[in-house]
Amino acid sequence: MKIALIQMACSPNPSENVDQAVSHIEKAARGEAQLLCLPELFRSQYFCQREDAALFDLAESIPGPTTEVLGKIAKEKNVTILASLFERRAAGVYHNSLVVMNERGEIASLYRKMHIPDDPAYYEKFYFTPGDKGFQAINTSHATIGPLICWDQWYPEAARLTALHGAEVLVYPTAIGWYPPEKAQDGAAQRDAWVTIQRSHAIANGVFVVAVNRVGHEIQSEGGDGIEFWGSSFVCDPFGVILAQASVEKEEVLFVDIDLKRIEETRRNWPFLRDRRIDAYGGITQRYIDDAT
Amino acid sequence: MKIALIQMACSPNPSENVDQAVSHIEKAARGEAQLLCLPELFRSQYFCQREDAALFDLAESIPGPTTEVLGKIAKEKNVTILASLFERRAAGVYHNSLVVMNERGEIASLYRKMHIPDDPAYYEKFYFTPGDKGFQAINTSHATIGPLICWDQWYPEAARLTALHGAEVLVYPTAIGWYPPEKAQDGAAQRDAWVTIQRSHAIANGVFVVAVNRVGHEIQSEGGDGIEFWGSSFVCDPFGVILAQASVEKEEVLFVDIDLKRIEETRRNWPFLRDRRIDAYGGITQRYIDDAT
Repeated sequence: MKIALIQMACSPNPSENVDQAVSHIEKAARGEAQLLCLPELFRSQYFCQREDAALFDLAESIPGPTTEVLGKIAKEKNVTILASLFERRAAGVYHNSLVVMNERGEIASLYRKMHIPDDPAYYEKFYFTPGDKGFQAINTSHATIGPLICWDQWYPEAARLTALHGAEVLVYPTAIGWYPPEKAQDGAAQRDAWVTIQRSHAIANGVFVVAVNRVGHEIQSEGGDGIEFWGSSFVCDPFGVILAQASVEKEEVLFVDIDLKRIEETRRNWPFLRDRRIDAYGGITQRYIDDAT
Repeated sequence: MKIALIQMACSPNPSENVDQAVSHIEKAARGEAQLLCLPELFRSQYFCQREDAALFDLAESIPGPTTEVLGKIAKEKNVTILASLFERRAAGVYHNSLVVMNERGEIASLYRKMHIPDDPAYYEKFYFTPGDKGFQAINTSHATIGPLICWDQWYPEAARLTALHGAEVLVYPTAIGWYPPEKAQDGAAQRDAWVTIQRSHAIANGVFVVAVNRVGHEIQSEGGDGIEFWGSSFVCDPFGVILAQASVEKEEVLFVDIDLKRIEETRRNWPFLRDRRIDAYGGITQRYIDDAT
């Protein structure tokens, strides 16, 4: 099967971004991709750089105007589209969500980001109620997809549970970048940690991993340094081998052929799932285990 | 604090290997290391390449002859030693175990390998009863150590639980290498996956990771190709940055200074432990979650 990672730059104008996404989707479809992934919250610039209640206006219902546009193009081009949206579920209940639009133009599933960050310039706990639909595996025409979003990528539990549900391809739409004053000293290690942790989920679980990030330098707070999104969208195979990786700064549609048979082959030779000590993992549901202190 | 990773080649003669270990320990102590780690089952060649009941004779009790030798040198040199031993617990009950010998020459803790592999040339399920002492954090004079062994390194659950118990430094004595006929095609990816998964435990948990492997080409079965142990012992910091790495083929004592303050600093800036969705992790104790099929 062929996947297309749509690495976008996002403008301040949501309708422009949706148009841009559609144009990338058309390009991906011309290239015969079957599964297309957009970056996290592609419809706007990364508004979580500041806390401003007016920005909840960016949210929309699901189904809503953007799923309508994407459903139409998914059906027209006969492709599956993974799209991350700022979901308005009810007044005061907003989520960072990921829909899978199938080739019939329907919403095949809705995932809501489970792990919500909150750091300077990533004030997501202000905007997003933590997801309440759990970890999922979604059957699509070509593969069973594990929908996850950005900060989820740092949690081995999320990857493991999604894989145990049967996902063959974990997909992480993402908005992560450098804080410009830190870039020279820590930038390389930060980007490398981000790649490494996601490759590790592929290895631990014997699944493909797809990470789709945005590019561009977005300054959303007065006098701030903004975030320089580091692109670097990539796909790795079930042993963590990077099959393709995009640039750090350019908009691009990255096409990657993946062979799902690699999962069976990898798991036969590195049978990690066989030997899990499920009798001894109960403590994972604790926040911290205080006996050692 | 200063750590010494003792990357050894092992001969067919156990008493020679113990002498060799002592000589490396003396060197490490001269270099002012405080925490010393030997490779997995350093007292013998890697006998699990074949299944042979006579090889249970290699096991010994804990405490036993080897802990006596190591306790003496630990006390004399005022160092902490982590030593992986083939433990005879009772007739028919053998473990792949890791003892921490403190500076007073006492056994401070005993960990028994929880995840037991079984693959061609790694027939560990024949020899080792799975560990029954769970995941641990051991307070030593210089750091809280998380003892783990080899195959455990592929399991994010093991690293997570050990870190939640309070471990600051995860230590993985290891015996892993290339199957010579596969080396040209897959060798680089295999070694890279091994480094990557362990670096990911550092990142996910904000802890140091120490992996100590053996070197040498050991052929233990008639007409077999044996295993070419890949050395590459390394230490990485709480963000997965490799601080030092040994060669693929030489015996060496690798000295690494680590600053435990890096843990607090890393976890403040990348607060992954804060946002874990412990309400949603219950499925981790399942073997597989069949709802998607």
